[in-house]
Amino acid sequence: MAERVTLIDGRPDDCLPVSDRGLQYGDGLFETIAVRRGQSCLWGRHLARLAAGCERLGIPKPNPELLAAERDDLLARAAATDGVLKLTITRGSGPRGYAPPAAPRPRRILSFAAGLPTTTNRAEAGVRLTLCATRLGENARLAGIKHLNRLEQVLARAEWSDPRTLDGLMCNAQGHVICGTMSNIYALDDAGIATPPLTRCGVAGTVRSVMQDCAQDLGIPFAERVLRPADLFAARGLLISNALLGVVPVASLQAHGYSTEALPTELIERVRQIALEPETHP
Amino acid sequence: MAERVTLIDGRPDDCLPVSDRGLQYGDGLFETIAVRRGQSCLWGRHLARLAAGCERLGIPKPNPELLAAERDDLLARAAATDGVLKLTITRGSGPRGYAPPAAPRPRRILSFAAGLPTTTNRAEAGVRLTLCATRLGENARLAGIKHLNRLEQVLARAEWSDPRTLDGLMCNAQGHVICGTMSNIYALDDAGIATPPLTRCGVAGTVRSVMQDCAQDLGIPFAERVLRPADLFAARGLLISNALLGVVPVASLQAHGYSTEALPTELIERVRQIALEPETHP
Repeated sequence: MAERVTLIDGRPDDCLPVSDRGLQYGDGLFETIAVRRGQSCLWGRHLARLAAGCERLGIPKPNPELLAAERDDLLARAAATDGVLKLTITRGSGPRGYAPPAAPRPRRILSFAAGLPTTTNRAEAGVRLTLCATRLGENARLAGIKHLNRLEQVLARAEWSDPRTLDGLMCNAQGHVICGTMSNIYALDDAGIATPPLTRCGVAGTVRSVMQDCAQDLGIPFAERVLRPADLFAARGLLISNALLGVVPVASLQAHGYSTEALPTELIERVRQIALEPETHP
Repeated sequence: MAERVTLIDGRPDDCLPVSDRGLQYGDGLFETIAVRRGQSCLWGRHLARLAAGCERLGIPKPNPELLAAERDDLLARAAATDGVLKLTITRGSGPRGYAPPAAPRPRRILSFAAGLPTTTNRAEAGVRLTLCATRLGENARLAGIKHLNRLEQVLARAEWSDPRTLDGLMCNAQGHVICGTMSNIYALDDAGIATPPLTRCGVAGTVRSVMQDCAQDLGIPFAERVLRPADLFAARGLLISNALLGVVPVASLQAHGYSTEALPTELIERVRQIALEPETHP
């Protein structure tokens, strides 16, 4: 099994022209996709978010059949079992200056790296979170999409080094919790499940959308609501989600511990079944 | 004269590993430096801002002597006369995830492209500006430095296509004007010269610092002050600056025309002498 394999525009390569606007300006988008038993998870939801991001940034949408074919080629070349498929779309190369080229030729970068974070123990015991001091800037035009401007996440992630802490929660300037550096957050209270709105910053997670769908199916109230750290400390339980972990209980946020007893077991199981099971490739 | 020449870590190359964090997260900084008659302008100020940016992001600072040697090598290889030197520093390659590597090996990318914007006519007649709808997000930790997260500028620059419009001004969420997509802005009123504070977004321009120094030398009041579009429309005159243009009068902001008669000629001349004259290389 190869350690890391990359296709650029369908060809094995791991070298990008310096003129690429992904490097120059972070002018592009990415998806981090779980691969299990050689197959991608939540492919359809990842592609839908990618398409929404392209729409928002004015980048021509890549052909979904082409992406699926390149994914299959990559996973075959890597003899992939479990790992992470990173799919990056940039606006491609261009001349000097911010102005997007009139006829951009977007670049497709697909990389596979073997190995997935092990969630089994964590899922039972719950994960540790911290609160980051680094704030999220707000811009409605960039909110929700998974673009390449990720310096805030880098600075926030640099705030802790204890490997037992899985993620750090980030607030906006008003002190509203928005998300983790690499996860979405859910608070359980008597009214049901609440998660922060992502209209001005944050990333509309693929598993977050599964959570929403499954909660609806199960008749569990699920609301987008402003959450301050105090609301999280007062919650009956917390969950986080991302594409690699699925959904996992939170054992502690800084010094505050949570019981996992009140968490909606059926919802968690159902979300995991969808988020962690490979889709049968079309 | 070569069209475009690039050195990566001192070697002629224009191909970057996909694992570079500059591409992955915009995890780096850049400087856009005017080259005239084969020599760089404002090198010292560019390097000072770059060092401040490295400090802020926790990227090890590149050795100034090494950068100067690579600059000289690049300009010699390109047989450079007038053009643009782009100097990019990234945190280098790293494993998957936002966490900065404990011992990063930053990458140095120096590119020279022949040709400079011609300012002579513009400088006399003044330039046209527009107001952009795209807002600047605020984050004190990223304000002032010239980092690689530039999607807001890309989206703002995509708002106009008339080549006679030189730049577009951007506001923060409160509607305060901060800067152009590629320039800083100055308003002349009875009290002197005012320019927006850059404590929560914007880039601390090299020529902006020259403006500040020269205004002080000439005893011209120069203040950082919140400016709304209405303040700009009411101003006796406007100036913009950047490293390639130096400082130039504004002829119009959208439909509003400005006289250039009240502008401080001596200040403009002095700033141009410093900003547009190559420094003698050490």
